[in-house]
Amino acid sequence: MVDKMRIAVLTSGGDAPGMNAAVRTIAVMGLAQGHEVLGVRHGYQGLLEGELTPLTLSEVNGISRQGGTILGSARSKVFPTEEGQAQAKKMLKKHEVDALIVLGGNGSLTGAHLLAKDRPCQIIGLPASIDNDIGHCGLSIGTDTAVNTIVEACDRISDTARAHRRAFIVEVMGRHSGFLAMRAGIAAEADAILYGEAKLDEDDIVDRLRAILQRSFAPGGYKTRALFIKAEGVEVPTKRLVKRLQYHLEKDAPDVDIRETILGHVVRGGRPSGLDRCIAQRLAFAAVSACEAGLHDVMLAWQSPEDAGQATQDPFVRIIPIADVLAETTKLLNGTSPVVQARIALLKKAENLLAL
Amino acid sequence: MVDKMRIAVLTSGGDAPGMNAAVRTIAVMGLAQGHEVLGVRHGYQGLLEGELTPLTLSEVNGISRQGGTILGSARSKVFPTEEGQAQAKKMLKKHEVDALIVLGGNGSLTGAHLLAKDRPCQIIGLPASIDNDIGHCGLSIGTDTAVNTIVEACDRISDTARAHRRAFIVEVMGRHSGFLAMRAGIAAEADAILYGEAKLDEDDIVDRLRAILQRSFAPGGYKTRALFIKAEGVEVPTKRLVKRLQYHLEKDAPDVDIRETILGHVVRGGRPSGLDRCIAQRLAFAAVSACEAGLHDVMLAWQSPEDAGQATQDPFVRIIPIADVLAETTKLLNGTSPVVQARIALLKKAENLLAL
Amino acid sequence: MVDKMRIAVLTSGGDAPGMNAAVRTIAVMGLAQGHEVLGVRHGYQGLLEGELTPLTLSEVNGISRQGGTILGSARSKVFPTEEGQAQAKKMLKKHEVDALIVLGGNGSLTGAHLLAKDRPCQIIGLPASIDNDIGHCGLSIGTDTAVNTIVEACDRISDTARAHRRAFIVEVMGRHSGFLAMRAGIAAEADAILYGEAKLDEDDIVDRLRAILQRSFAPGGYKTRALFIKAEGVEVPTKRLVKRLQYHLEKDAPDVDIRETILGHVVRGGRPSGLDRCIAQRLAFAAVSACEAGLHDVMLAWQSPEDAGQATQDPFVRIIPIADVLAETTKLLNGTSPVVQARIALLKKAENLLAL
Amino acid sequence: MVDKMRIAVLTSGGDAPGMNAAVRTIAVMGLAQGHEVLGVRHGYQGLLEGELTPLTLSEVNGISRQGGTILGSARSKVFPTEEGQAQAKKMLKKHEVDALIVLGGNGSLTGAHLLAKDRPCQIIGLPASIDNDIGHCGLSIGTDTAVNTIVEACDRISDTARAHRRAFIVEVMGRHSGFLAMRAGIAAEADAILYGEAKLDEDDIVDRLRAILQRSFAPGGYKTRALFIKAEGVEVPTKRLVKRLQYHLEKDAPDVDIRETILGHVVRGGRPSGLDRCIAQRLAFAAVSACEAGLHDVMLAWQSPEDAGQATQDPFVRIIPIADVLAETTKLLNGTSPVVQARIALLKKAENLLAL
Repeated sequence: MVDKMRIAVLTSGGDAPGMNAAVRTIAVMGLAQGHEVLGVRHGYQGLLEGELTPLTLSEVNGISRQGGTILGSARSKVFPTEEGQAQAKKMLKKHEVDALIVLGGNGSLTGAHLLAKDRPCQIIGLPASIDNDIGHCGLSIGTDTAVNTIVEACDRISDTARAHRRAFIVEVMGRHSGFLAMRAGIAAEADAILYGEAKLDEDDIVDRLRAILQRSFAPGGYKTRALFIKAEGVEVPTKRLVKRLQYHLEKDAPDVDIRETILGHVVRGGRPSGLDRCIAQRLAFAAVSACEAGLHDVMLAWQSPEDAGQATQDPFVRIIPIADVLAETTKLLNGTSPVVQARIALLKKAENLLAL
Repeated sequence: MVDKMRIAVLTSGGDAPGMNAAVRTIAVMGLAQGHEVLGVRHGYQGLLEGELTPLTLSEVNGISRQGGTILGSARSKVFPTEEGQAQAKKMLKKHEVDALIVLGGNGSLTGAHLLAKDRPCQIIGLPASIDNDIGHCGLSIGTDTAVNTIVEACDRISDTARAHRRAFIVEVMGRHSGFLAMRAGIAAEADAILYGEAKLDEDDIVDRLRAILQRSFAPGGYKTRALFIKAEGVEVPTKRLVKRLQYHLEKDAPDVDIRETILGHVVRGGRPSGLDRCIAQRLAFAAVSACEAGLHDVMLAWQSPEDAGQATQDPFVRIIPIADVLAETTKLLNGTSPVVQARIALLKKAENLLAL
Repeated sequence: MVDKMRIAVLTSGGDAPGMNAAVRTIAVMGLAQGHEVLGVRHGYQGLLEGELTPLTLSEVNGISRQGGTILGSARSKVFPTEEGQAQAKKMLKKHEVDALIVLGGNGSLTGAHLLAKDRPCQIIGLPASIDNDIGHCGLSIGTDTAVNTIVEACDRISDTARAHRRAFIVEVMGRHSGFLAMRAGIAAEADAILYGEAKLDEDDIVDRLRAILQRSFAPGGYKTRALFIKAEGVEVPTKRLVKRLQYHLEKDAPDVDIRETILGHVVRGGRPSGLDRCIAQRLAFAAVSACEAGLHDVMLAWQSPEDAGQATQDPFVRIIPIADVLAETTKLLNGTSPVVQARIALLKKAENLLAL
Repeated sequence: MVDKMRIAVLTSGGDAPGMNAAVRTIAVMGLAQGHEVLGVRHGYQGLLEGELTPLTLSEVNGISRQGGTILGSARSKVFPTEEGQAQAKKMLKKHEVDALIVLGGNGSLTGAHLLAKDRPCQIIGLPASIDNDIGHCGLSIGTDTAVNTIVEACDRISDTARAHRRAFIVEVMGRHSGFLAMRAGIAAEADAILYGEAKLDEDDIVDRLRAILQRSFAPGGYKTRALFIKAEGVEVPTKRLVKRLQYHLEKDAPDVDIRETILGHVVRGGRPSGLDRCIAQRLAFAAVSACEAGLHDVMLAWQSPEDAGQATQDPFVRIIPIADVLAETTKLLNGTSPVVQARIALLKKAENLLAL
């Protein structure tokens, strides 16, 4: 028997496919256990403005399949300030919230950790970000769907590229993390994958891609298209790369064009994949249990094999203090994390081979 | 009993989903009737270079589902010149081609009509273009798939737009025709559709979109996102529109952002829809019959109700002289065709209502 | 200026993708014109029970992309009876309905025609049925999406069939019409298409398919799978065909298996295609205009080129008395309609060639 | 520097999406390292018949996106016999194969282990099976795609079920393992998941589902459909369940129907998901390294956190003796493995809550 609680849930930052599946499971499981479940509208900004309303079973019925977030998200400039924090805590007290579950990426988890100070209520984080750039987290909610969307777009681009013997640079989201570029690049048979963590010099990039183009479109070659995936985090503008490579192509392979495609917000939405819905629901399930267990200032993570954290009854879900998550995130993003280093090492070896 | 012929097929211009389904049916039906069927590689350029090789059943088996074109396409600067024409005719003679089937858009059909002069062999055109900008043609091969791809992208964008109460301008292909923007815009519940045929002034566009944004995001309004679809053919750059509207939004609805997405080459590829495969195969079927019937310098069109042309045994397929197609195309693109005028009139009435 | 009306809309019979897009446009356009718009829940049964509630803009916002129908559908045994008719008319009066728009297939349109007697209010029909079996109607709402769903399933089945050199019989919906089987079969590169209209004898079917299997899997053949599409309306059970063909295969090609797949309700749901959303919205737009014009006991049809009917401002939409629709439907389903005869004649010629 | 080897690859058993991505990476990496790479056609049967031919870069270019297997698969009754084994070894010698990479499920890995005896050459296994029923393997190649396909089908079925307030039993593949049913069931918001491992009695199943139906369709309830996912491995025929539940519904909720859908071979094919292409390529990459390292009679596994095995340079890939894999598989399938027990325990707790 668990004590009855009042649990609130908010979604914050960029939306990620699977957020709705998590919101539904929190509501369904919370209500089944006899708790009250409140939805906070429009992220932290809505919290400040007191937009907390009870979630009903009817409202969450069938939402797992929807992209975006039915709760809405929003940026708040006030929330991180001292006044914002005070106001947020006041609202949590006013609405008698026992536990707040926050779904979001690094910014949102930083906010959750800040809010956790002085424990206005229990704070539980769930990692939701298409970029998979959160520390101690194998796959964040939304990443798998985003990879599928990028791969599908690359398949389409490959169709037209092959029809014309063309090269394409496809830029994908991921300002601080090359994960999406890497995973989608491998899946899409990319000829090169460019990511910020490699800290490549513009001339080096051009030289490398030019060499690949020369090999790919050499007379008698078997390739009929070249595909380069570039993470947003690579500082050289895509247009500049295209221009410089076009210049070289005029000599190297005059019948070949190079084009760019920026896959922007298209990648953020869409029906969540089976895996994302599954991850979201299992994390949400553990989040309600974590509320009941009195946990505070922790995140629940879809476990990666290298990962630390405390076990749950779900072998794939671990409990990690948000402070540890944020510390590890810093290492992930500045490239000092062994996880990133292993990823890059593996990819370097593979790339030398794949760009045959 | 038909005389045995040597039929060649080439794909030219921008590739369109469904081209492969047409190529397959031409090969399968041609071979079934006892003809020889040659594939010309890389469009007119390949014709000049004599890249004509027999198409086998094995090679075309299962290709209907593939985007792009297995024959390849390419631009040729030489083909439209006098030398180019002479060389093309020489090659057709050399390979003893009795009939050439050309799949492509307006440029390719113009080329076909040019080549038809002096009848080096029978010339049959098939309309393939995602833009649906070809005269006397209800739907060209590739249009239906492109609409579906755009609608799917708009659905994804709507997910994230609704999560953040955002506005988006989505730019789609169609330099000379707003058809894609119109059809996809209706299907995607767009709040406004911008197309070049309307010849709108920049200030008028800004005023109209601003008014929609004010209504859409007014306090107490039911809308949670605004979606504007803009055809490539509208001369005002999308970035400029976004900038000007952002400026207004700061006063009108400070918590609302406006973003842009350019759907470029992603729209060109992909698995063809059922309808595109069906149109492609029925046109291809009629094309082989047209070869056997000795027709020359004509296009086969998926019939639209207003359309002229000679009947075939397929009630949805008509035979139209390419010269007539090109003349009608001019009217379509300069907006004097009644087809375009009816389309615009209908859309105007609808838009006034739909952008509630 | 139009007089303000009270317009009700109901969806009936099997649901079809695109119904929601039509419901939304009826609501949006109706409300924009100053009318009241009521949604009838659960089809004719809900009408009998007085389940008419106002439709709001908020409720229909974004529903175009959803399969199924937000209004619900249901079968009613009482509605066609004398008491049912009296009760329905009583409810229409009680709720002061000026016009009722009915979305559905043949059964639902028959019901609409029955109800139209004595004009309890204006009755307008919209054709919605995945089977495309409605008279004087080029494409009914839902057909295009259903074709795409079947084609995609056949593509998947072809993958596994090619891996194992297998034959498949895929049974698709369409008890009274082979349209889905025909169109999807062409698009999916089927080796044979079986439909009830052909009134084939079981032995003839077996002989024909056996011959195709022998050719397809003959040593040295280029085919790696055989695909037969069978409409529900063919009387021989699929299992029986599989069993008989398996028997022959043991002699003819012992390493080849034949399997069956029944594509049932999967084909009914799913996100509507761009075309279905477009057809639905344009028909709905015309339906509201038809209400305003005082029309009664008519259906609006997405025009097919052979079709009769009165023009609207949309060149692709025609107005046809429901009585004429039902008379033509009878001819469609018993095979005496020239439309069906042309379709079968064309397919027969094609099939002889395609099953190379 | 590695010694040049002759590496052969074969795909066996039921095909799984991602097999082609693995075949491509084996070919690309093998050739890049200077090895010869042979493709064995039609599985073990093709090995017996000496169907080994060199794989070229051109042949594997772009195949990662294709479902099925370009190498073909086939059942062989002879291979497991003594004569079969001798013949297979003879062929491996004759073609001077240094290492054979086998992609397939439990049957294929059992075959690989048998063949490994006396080491006719190095034998390396890669787990490919949509059922995810292979021991010591987190996710086998093809599972993720199959889950997505099932979830998409359930979404479609939910559309039509909600339109009519209906219940559906959806039967999915997995004769020996309920993994697909479990994962897809969670993702699709199923109301109950039935799997063979639970060894449920027919009456217990009926009682449980009936209780869910009563709750779901009680007057005033929020549910508009019920969805039950049933693994093939549950012994009670789906038709029987439907019949018995229909009987109860007539009393409990006379306006509600229950229907069945068997998702058969549709689930096996289709474009592989990003994750499946990624898993396939990373396992294939490690497989070539394992060949070079002289490993024998081992399988490479996409690591699950509980898993044993030897590390590779890819943190997510482990090396496990095939004998250990087969022993663990036995425990997985008879339900004594802690992995299965944890899965069932978690699901039981969740199901009690989810079927609110």
